[in-house]
Parts: sequence; structure tokens; C-alpha cells
Amino acid sequence: MLTIEKIHDARDVLREALYRTDVIHTNKLTDRCDLSLKTENLQKTGSFKIRGAYYKIARLSPEEKARGVIACSAGNHAQGVALAAQKNGIPALICLPDGAPISKVEATRSYGAELCLVPGVYDDAYQRALELQKERSLTFIHPFDDEDVIAGQGTIGLEILEQCKDVEAIVVPVGGGGLISGVAFAVKQVAPHVKVYGVQAAGAASMLNSLHDGKIECLPSVSTIADGIAVKQPGVATFDYCSKYVDGMIAVTDEEICAAILALIEKQKMIAEGAGAAGVAAVLAGKLPELDGKKVCCLVSGGNIDVTILSRVITRGLVMSGRQCTLNIELLDKPGQLVAVSQIIAKCGANVVGVHHEHANAGSEVIGCYLRIDLETRDFAQIAEIENALRNAGFKLC
Amino acid sequence: MLTIEKIHDARDVLREALYRTDVIHTNKLTDRCDLSLKTENLQKTGSFKIRGAYYKIARLSPEEKARGVIACSAGNHAQGVALAAQKNGIPALICLPDGAPISKVEATRSYGAELCLVPGVYDDAYQRALELQKERSLTFIHPFDDEDVIAGQGTIGLEILEQCKDVEAIVVPVGGGGLISGVAFAVKQVAPHVKVYGVQAAGAASMLNSLHDGKIECLPSVSTIADGIAVKQPGVATFDYCSKYVDGMIAVTDEEICAAILALIEKQKMIAEGAGAAGVAAVLAGKLPELDGKKVCCLVSGGNIDVTILSRVITRGLVMSGRQCTLNIELLDKPGQLVAVSQIIAKCGANVVGVHHEHANAGSEVIGCYLRIDLETRDFAQIAEIENALRNAGFKLC
Repeated sequence: MLTIEKIHDARDVLREALYRTDVIHTNKLTDRCDLSLKTENLQKTGSFKIRGAYYKIARLSPEEKARGVIACSAGNHAQGVALAAQKNGIPALICLPDGAPISKVEATRSYGAELCLVPGVYDDAYQRALELQKERSLTFIHPFDDEDVIAGQGTIGLEILEQCKDVEAIVVPVGGGGLISGVAFAVKQVAPHVKVYGVQAAGAASMLNSLHDGKIECLPSVSTIADGIAVKQPGVATFDYCSKYVDGMIAVTDEEICAAILALIEKQKMIAEGAGAAGVAAVLAGKLPELDGKKVCCLVSGGNIDVTILSRVITRGLVMSGRQCTLNIELLDKPGQLVAVSQIIAKCGANVVGVHHEHANAGSEVIGCYLRIDLETRDFAQIAEIENALRNAGFKLC
Repeated sequence: MLTIEKIHDARDVLREALYRTDVIHTNKLTDRCDLSLKTENLQKTGSFKIRGAYYKIARLSPEEKARGVIACSAGNHAQGVALAAQKNGIPALICLPDGAPISKVEATRSYGAELCLVPGVYDDAYQRALELQKERSLTFIHPFDDEDVIAGQGTIGLEILEQCKDVEAIVVPVGGGGLISGVAFAVKQVAPHVKVYGVQAAGAASMLNSLHDGKIECLPSVSTIADGIAVKQPGVATFDYCSKYVDGMIAVTDEEICAAILALIEKQKMIAEGAGAAGVAAVLAGKLPELDGKKVCCLVSGGNIDVTILSRVITRGLVMSGRQCTLNIELLDKPGQLVAVSQIIAKCGANVVGVHHEHANAGSEVIGCYLRIDLETRDFAQIAEIENALRNAGFKLC
């Protein structure tokens, strides 16, 4: 059973091995509230997940430790279990789907775990993990639905209360619910007046739906940029803790998460992954108006964003802020048209980064052709200026 | 004249207004040496530049303060002067070329400065600044060639010596030389056994060339991703200090800088701009082999990277690490070819992000056409697997 004593015990156990990550105060992100960030993206392995895994492993019996642990994950939990096992000097076996990003596979391997790459998707890897667990009598480390794991994550709640004096509300990303269960439980025992809010990705709002319906719901599928909180079904224990201790749960869109990731990069010089930025996204997007003017701490839960995803996030951010655009121009198929267009763009000071030119298709005039130009621009005003200049020169934009 | 007392005085003056940024120890970036990072990218305004500007402005006479200050910059110096002036309660006028990135213009404006957007390039803005300085009797704040500015930057040297016990070498990015002059002077007064190395961008190696030739050289042009250190000519004072106090100066390529920016993102969850990452780039690329096994502190001087540039850096990094690639395939112009290629790629598990298909051109067979496919891939091995599968199916890659 979860008790505040257990979370204090976890704190003592973790002290030797992990970071007490900083709480950073910021006035650069929003004027809505007095905002601080708990930087678990700077935790060892780049995520809070190692806290729960470490405490769970540290409490195993000598016999259990000798046999070792197993987990199924392609993400932060895999790295957390691997490093926690290494630090406790015990073997770890991690099952991953074989299509997992190479960067995550390599990171997990670098912490000394044995890897089992299972053909298929997550569910296939999970089934294989259950088989291997029985065959080898290993201890299965659940990513969230486990009292020891929850107690480990709860240490973050104690730290925030110490590091962020007079905090009025804590905003926590929610997937399976292990992190917020621990944080909310700890906070409500020590400082019950402090509010705890959960934030899910709109494309994976399983806890939100379950709380709404008063029973555990399973989503048929999940889809979000925040892979760290893309969970189809909350845990039994975590659903219970969230029902009892969490003050509110909302969802944010992938667009809002992308905007938060970009804001953290540009204004805080900090990398957060999708899940890690979900709490900040909720505040920046005004999804928690009850926090306006309050002293708020957002838990930035992780920073392990794949650079491929990061590249897409930035591109989307550039388009949304008018710093990148694509123009489709219908041209007459005669010499000199490309020159004329290029001159107009150059005169307006934009930078051409891609050109695609094609001849008439079924839908256009037979003497026409299309020019698609990708541009780096300064802002929406500059884009409008270019579009007007092209129209004034007789070009047809489509 | 620069003295250690002056740098101590600057320290006292800055204490009230700026951050003593953290020194972060890291074992994630390299095994070559015992590496720490002085995080001036997390300084107010996102760069060290505010230190020199603040100290310079704080020491102005009441009359000079009343008239105000002027600077010419589209970058970190502009923001540093603007915020330093605001904090000292005096007016600042900043001249910028009108093509400056909107994000930098807006950041400078947000610190309360009056902006003068001058048509043309940097040199035009500089000429206009000199005119305005005379017209309005303003104090010109030079970005580097000024004893007070150098003293302000030198405070970083004192901090590193305190924060990074037993440091053996400090690696500093170099543009005009103000930062390294202050740091090297301070370090050599307090702990002369500590080595100080400078790092320039290969496309803007004006100080390196000048030191090599024993006299100040002016480059005809500069070209580097590290805009913060793209300086054509070192200062008179800074050249002198570098000659006397700096132990070595080397250059890094833009490729090496990009790799360092990506490493800081992926492994430290931290954003550095090109100039800011130059020191780290030198260490990671093995350009300073004399530091192997030593206790080293790299000064990460700034984090204000334009997201357009960041996007390009990431793309380049993805291509260099096999996580993005473009295949050019010569096809026979008959039905079913695109299906066959798509199936092979899907079977190998890669993700198609762009397709460009065009008919025969002068150099190819008349019945042929070209298919260009942009892919997200896992690594070079996967790319080779796809290429082999396509070749085995009879496709010609070019």
C-alpha cells in the first residue's frame, strides 16, 4: 500500500543514485501565471521513469535480484529499468518491438541491458516479455501500475514542494498515470491545499475518458506526437489514485504540444519531448484558466525526443509562424516566367529553398504549367507582400 | 586599462542584475576528457554579451547615462545592450540592418530599446549608427573592443575557476575576441597554470589568421553558421590580449559545429547556437588533442539559434547519421513501377516523406523516367538494405 512514509523511503533510496533535478523559474513563457519548471528532462536517462524503476529494483529480495528483471518498452521506461538495474548490479532484459527507433535501442543497450528485439509491434513485444518472464523467473517491472514504481515517482512531489515555495498548483503529464498518482498522493499528504492537475494528449486520453466515465476504459488505438504518454488503458491502481487525489484532468492537441516544445527551445534553450511538454502546453494554450495569476509548477517529465520528430515539430512551428511557406503558382509555359518569379521573390527578401516545376495536368489550361516554390520567410507580412507582388505582376496563385 | 581589480568590480556590479550561470558536468558527450559546460546560453538574453554591456553602461557618468547609448548589432549584442540599458534605466538606440531575422528584432524591442532599421547590410547599419551617435551625443557600446566590455566578460573566467574545481583548461568561442580576452586575462591573473584555448569558425578565422601573422588582418568576407562569431577583423585591444594570454587558437568547420549542436540537443537536452557550440565542437572533433584526459570546461557562450537554422542543422545531422536519405531511381515508364518501389520500401520498414516523379530528360533513355524518394530511415544499414532490395528487383539507382 502507498504511504507517505514509503515515498520518503524512496527519496532516501534515490538520493544516492539520481539527481534532485532543478526547479527553474521562468518569466519568458507566459504572463498568465507565475511559472516554474521541474526539469526531469535533465534527470539521468533524460526522464523521470528511472525513479520508479530504481526504487522498485532496490526493494527486491536478494533472490529476486539474483534472477534479474524484465521490462517491455521502446522508450523511457526501458532506459530507466536498464540504468536502474545496472546501478543495482543486477541483470535486466528489455523486450522491444524490432521497429523501435535505433537511438532508443542504442541508449538502452548502452546502460548494459540485454535486449530482445521482437518482430512486430508493442503488443507482440509485451507477449514475448511475459513468456520470457515465466521461463526465466524474472521480476516484471511494470511502467506505471505498481505501488513501488508509483512511490518512486512520488518523490518528485516532495521535491517540488521544497524547491518551489508557496506553489499553488502542479501540472503533470499523464499517460498510464504512474507519475501523477505518486505526485498527487505525496502532495495531498504533505500540502493538501496544493492543486494537482493532469494533462493528457488528446489522441490518447484514456485516463481522462476513464475518470469521466467512472471506470477504466481502453482506447482502441492512440495517436499523438507524445509517444511517452500514448497509453491505451490506465492502470488499476493509478486509476484509483487519480480518482481520489487529482483535482482536474484535461487534454491538449498535438499542435499545442508542438507549440510548447518550440517555446521551450526558443525561450528556455531547453529540449522537452512531446510528453514532457504536455503540461507546459496546457498552461500556454490557456487550457487551465483556473491557474491564471497563480504560482504554478509544470513538471517537464522527459527530454528524449527523436530528432526526426524534433525536425518535424520545428518545421510545423516555422509554417505556423510565417517563417516558412510554399507558393503554388500557375504559369504560362513560355520562356522567362521562372526568372520573373525569382526576381520578385528576391526583391522581397525571401530565401528560396525548394523549386518544383511541372507541366500541364488534366485540370489546368493546356498551355499552362505549375511552379511550386518553398520559401524561408520573415513573417506572414512578408509572405503577403510576396503574394501581392506576384499577383500584381499577373501571376495566378493557387 | 584592464586589471584584475576591475574584473572583480565588474563581478560586484553584475551580481545584482545577472545570473551566475551553472557549470554542468557531463560524461555523455565525450570520453576524451573530463568535460564541464559553463552555460552562458542560459544567461539573461540567452548569451554572455549582456555582461560586458551591463558593466560598460553601469560605469557611465550621470550625464552620459542621461543621453543614452547606441549600438549596432542584429544579434546577441543588441539584446545585451537593450536589456542592460533597461535595467540601468537609460535609453538605448539599436541600429540593425532591415533584413535582420524578425525574432531577433522582436527580442531586442521587447527589452525596451528604440530600434533603427537601416536599409542594407551590417556595414550600412554601422555607418548610420555612427551618424546617430554624433547627432545625439550618445555613447557607442562596442561589442568587443572596449576595456569595460572585456572586464564584464572576464567575470566568467572568475566564475569558472570557482565552479569547476581543479579545471586544467578552458575552451572559449572567439569572434572579435572580447570574451576570450576577458576570460584569459582573469584566469592568468588568478590561476596562471590553467590553459585557455580559443575556437573560431573556419569560415571566419580572423583572430586565428591575425595571431598567425602577428598583426591584425581583415577578412574580405565571412561565411559560417555561427553568426555570433562571424567577425571580419579582431579588435586592437582584443588582439593584444589574445597575443599575450591565450595558449592556443584553432578553427572548426560548420559540419563540426552542427554535430556539436546536435550532440548537445540529444545528450544534454540543451540548445546552443553555432557560436555557443564552437568550443564543444573543437573538443568532440578532437581538434585539441592536448586536452585528452584533462579536466576541461567549455564555455557555451549563447543559445540564440534561429529555428530556421536549427531545422537545417537537424536535417544535416539526420542525413549524416543515416536517419534521412534520398534515393534517385531510374524507372521504365510503364504502369506498376511506383507500386513495386513503394512495396520494397515499406517491407524494409522505412517511412516515405517525399516523392518526386519526372519523365525522361535529355540524358536518359527515351522510355525512362526518374523517381526521387525522400525517406526517414533507421540507420545506414537500413538504407543499404533498401538499396540492395531495389537493385535485386531490377531497379537502377543513380
